[in-house]
Formats: sequence, C-alpha cells, structure tokens
Amino acid sequence: MRTNVCIVGLGLMGSSLAYALAGFRDAVLTGVDADPAVVEKALAKGAVDRASTELLDLAPEADLIIFCVYAHHIPGLLERCMTYLKPGAVVTDICGVKTGLYEAILPLPRTDVDYIGVHPMAGKERDGFDNGEASIFRNTGFILCPLESTQPESVTLMKELAAHIGATKITVTDYRRHDEIIAYTSDLMHIASAGLCVDFHPDLTSAFTAGAFRDCTRVADINADAWTELLLSNGPNVVNALDRYLDSLSRMRRALTDRDDDALHDLLERAGHNKREMLRR
Amino acid sequence: MRTNVCIVGLGLMGSSLAYALAGFRDAVLTGVDADPAVVEKALAKGAVDRASTELLDLAPEADLIIFCVYAHHIPGLLERCMTYLKPGAVVTDICGVKTGLYEAILPLPRTDVDYIGVHPMAGKERDGFDNGEASIFRNTGFILCPLESTQPESVTLMKELAAHIGATKITVTDYRRHDEIIAYTSDLMHIASAGLCVDFHPDLTSAFTAGAFRDCTRVADINADAWTELLLSNGPNVVNALDRYLDSLSRMRRALTDRDDDALHDLLERAGHNKREMLRR
Repeated sequence: MRTNVCIVGLGLMGSSLAYALAGFRDAVLTGVDADPAVVEKALAKGAVDRASTELLDLAPEADLIIFCVYAHHIPGLLERCMTYLKPGAVVTDICGVKTGLYEAILPLPRTDVDYIGVHPMAGKERDGFDNGEASIFRNTGFILCPLESTQPESVTLMKELAAHIGATKITVTDYRRHDEIIAYTSDLMHIASAGLCVDFHPDLTSAFTAGAFRDCTRVADINADAWTELLLSNGPNVVNALDRYLDSLSRMRRALTDRDDDALHDLLERAGHNKREMLRR
Repeated sequence: MRTNVCIVGLGLMGSSLAYALAGFRDAVLTGVDADPAVVEKALAKGAVDRASTELLDLAPEADLIIFCVYAHHIPGLLERCMTYLKPGAVVTDICGVKTGLYEAILPLPRTDVDYIGVHPMAGKERDGFDNGEASIFRNTGFILCPLESTQPESVTLMKELAAHIGATKITVTDYRRHDEIIAYTSDLMHIASAGLCVDFHPDLTSAFTAGAFRDCTRVADINADAWTELLLSNGPNVVNALDRYLDSLSRMRRALTDRDDDALHDLLERAGHNKREMLRR
C-alpha cells in the first residue's frame, strides 16, 4: 500500500512541500486548495497526483494530512473532516506558533487519529503557489512539537519527512518552548527589520546603502496579513523578546549618550561572542 | 607623467582599494603601513608598486593621498606630512563619519593642497590586509563630501576613481547630511543587529534559525574596536536615528499589548512600502 499524503493549502509552503515530498515513502500526493485556479495549476504542474477544492474529497483517504493554511482556519477544517478520517491517520500542521492552535484543537475527539505539529524553518519573501519550490527546505531547520499522546511512529514519520525534504537540523521540543524561542529567532527578527523601515531620512538614496542595510531590512518587505496574525498569536512571547531587545538597545543608547567607550565596546564584544555561540549550537 | 597615488593604511579597505585601483590613470601606486609584515606582503602580492612603513618616504611624491586608517590617526599623520606634500596634491580619506574629522583637520594649513573626503559604501566582516579584494566595491555606493574650497578637478578625480573601482551609485553630498543619513543606513543597522545578540534564549539551537535570523544578525559579529570609535564619532546623529527606531519599536509593542490588529497591520504595511521606496531612490 502506498502512503497517501494530503496537503491542505497549496500556497508557498504547501506547494513547496508537495514538490519536495516527491518520492517520499512512494507516496500518493493529494492537494486541497480553496482556489479552483490553484487546484488546476497544481495538477497541470504535477505538484500533486490529485487535487480538489473540497477537503472531504481527499482527506478521508489520507494516511498523513498536512495543514499548510493560516492557523485560524485549522480548527474549522479539522472539525469538518474529523469524522471521516482513516483510523490511524496522522495529522500535522506547519504553523509558526503552536500554543493557541493546540489549545483550540486538542485533544482530538478521536483517539485513533494522531497529532504532531511541526515547523519547517523555511520560507520566502513571496507567497503563493507560483513561488513554491522544493529547494526552500534544503539545509534548513525543522522542529517537531509532539504531544504526550503522540505515537512514536508519528515522530519517526515526521523526522523521515523532514530529512526527505532536505532539512538538516531536525529537533524535537515542547511546543511552549518552541513558541518562546521562535519569538526571538523569527518573530523578533521580523519586528526589528520592519521597525527599521517605519520611517527614513528624506534625503536617503540607495548610494548610502550597503550590505548592513540590505541584510537588516531584507524581511521588512513583509506579508502584513500573515505577520499580523503570526505576531499576535504569539503575543506574550513576542513582547518578552521585544522587551529584552529594547533593553539591549537602551543600554547601547546610554553608552552613546554617556560617551562611555568601555560600556559600548563591551556590548559590541558580547554581541559578537553570542552570535558566534548561537551558530555553534 | 604618471599619476602617483599613495594609500596610507593597508588594512581591508586600503588593500582592496590598491587592488581595485590597478590601471587607474596609469597610476604608480604606493602604500604606507605601520606594520612591516603588511608592507612586505603588499609588495609580494603586487598590491602596490612601492611600500614603506614611513609616511615621509612616499607621501611627498603623491598626487593623490588616500587615508585608509582609523579617523583618530589622520590629524597626526596629516600634520606630519603637510609641509612635504607636492603643490597641487589632493588629499582624501575614506572614513565613515566626516564631521569630527573635518573639524580636526580643516581648513588645511596650505591652500595649494586640496581636500575632499569620500565614503565607499563597501566592506566585509573580516578586517586586515589578507582579506582585501578588488571586488568589494563592485556595484556599490560611493559618496563624495567636498568642501566649499574643494577644486572641481578633485571632484572629477574622485568620481573617476569611484567608477574605476566599480562603484555604480556615486553621489555628492554635504558632509553633515552624509553623517545624518549614514547614522541610519549604516550605524543604526549595526546597532540593531548587535542589539539582537546581546542576549539569547538558553535553549536556542541553530535548528530554530532561518533566513530572517541569519540576515538580521549578520553584522552582529562586529569589529568592536572600529565600531566603538565609529558610533561615538557620530554620536548625536546615531542617538537621533536610534530614538526614531525605539519609537517605531514601541509603537509595534503597543499594538501587540493592545492586541490591535489594525495598528500592527498598518505599521507592517508602512515598513514594506518604505523598504520598496528606499530601494527605488
């Protein structure tokens, strides 16, 4: 029997996963998307073997269902298909924040359906089916957030899936800790970058910009819809991370206004040291 | 007569300039560095035609003298060689902040020596002669900060030099405005990036990091000596830029704690819009 994998939501992440999953456990790949044009393109491109706008056409056959939609859509979709899922089916999501989602959907009303959320640390500035590509997962991180109830086979399944799509830093963690750390490594980075672009000097031209500007502001051209939801759904953790950042910046500000070379030097040295340390871990 | 160009300081920037200047106005290139080992390497590598640890060996023959040393060394070096410079010689520096330096050295005690500061918007994480390469100036910005007294031929000379080394966005601006804009496009970016690394979650591993983390923290592994001097030498402008940044971050924080979707969305939209606008200029 071939494994049946159903991807729900064929935007950037769903379509990239579809391409990257080709050949995974000899799977039959199916895809669901609310947009009929996307369903048509997914079939035309061969991203999936079968596709539909209707979840109930495909979810009931699936051994693995991967939700690649905004988190707020998942509870409704899950409720809609729950009764029809195969016994033994595994359900996962790829959302960037877990706590609120897990609180909304768990425990599942069926004990013969297993749940394990994951978070592929991959993405792209441009969203949508047309931007999907298998390579976005290559050499990236991949975080598994199992529950106490998650079956060991489901953890193994998702680790294999992560390796298949090209992730090289695969880790298992508690979902609350995931949300705390992501508040720093992802959410705060986007806030820091967007914050740099909320205003700018009227005489600025690109002649004044170089690598530091390019890199620090790269993610500032942000998908405002997606990130408003992501940041608010991890609100308390993000505010904590932001407060630590504001404190660090205030210490640098004080060193500047006090003209305190030593204090400024120490902060810069420490930043460099920590940056190297984080890459080593 | 071949143009004689003397580069004072053969670190990353000086050596990169030496390589990139090959063939410029059929120049004889000479180099001065306090470190005898660097002088030896510069000759062995053919970075310059002649080199010495002694400024007075080479500066008196130069038509163009380029100071590629820390700003605080320039007044002393300039004073040391001033009497011996050729009539008509042009002196420049490549420092990232101009106001304090200009106040320390200008007006020059000789009216037959011309001054024009420049700022190549190029660099690299790693410093030193061994990291020099011609390509760091390719497709970069290059800012000229002439004085009222600067001769038009010196402006033309430096524009030609900028184009020769590969800069494509060449602009002329008042040095005070330069320092204001650079406080944002360069200084603030380094503070923002370093500030992100002043502390971090103890459970963080590289599995949790992706592109946003990589890019936002790229320049955090900073040369603390160089940047302590740079930031303090542009202190008031940097504090102004930092205050605008702190204000933007505080507005994002308020939107998060108020759970105000609209306010957060507006700030993110505006950041994206401004980022695109800055690249267009």
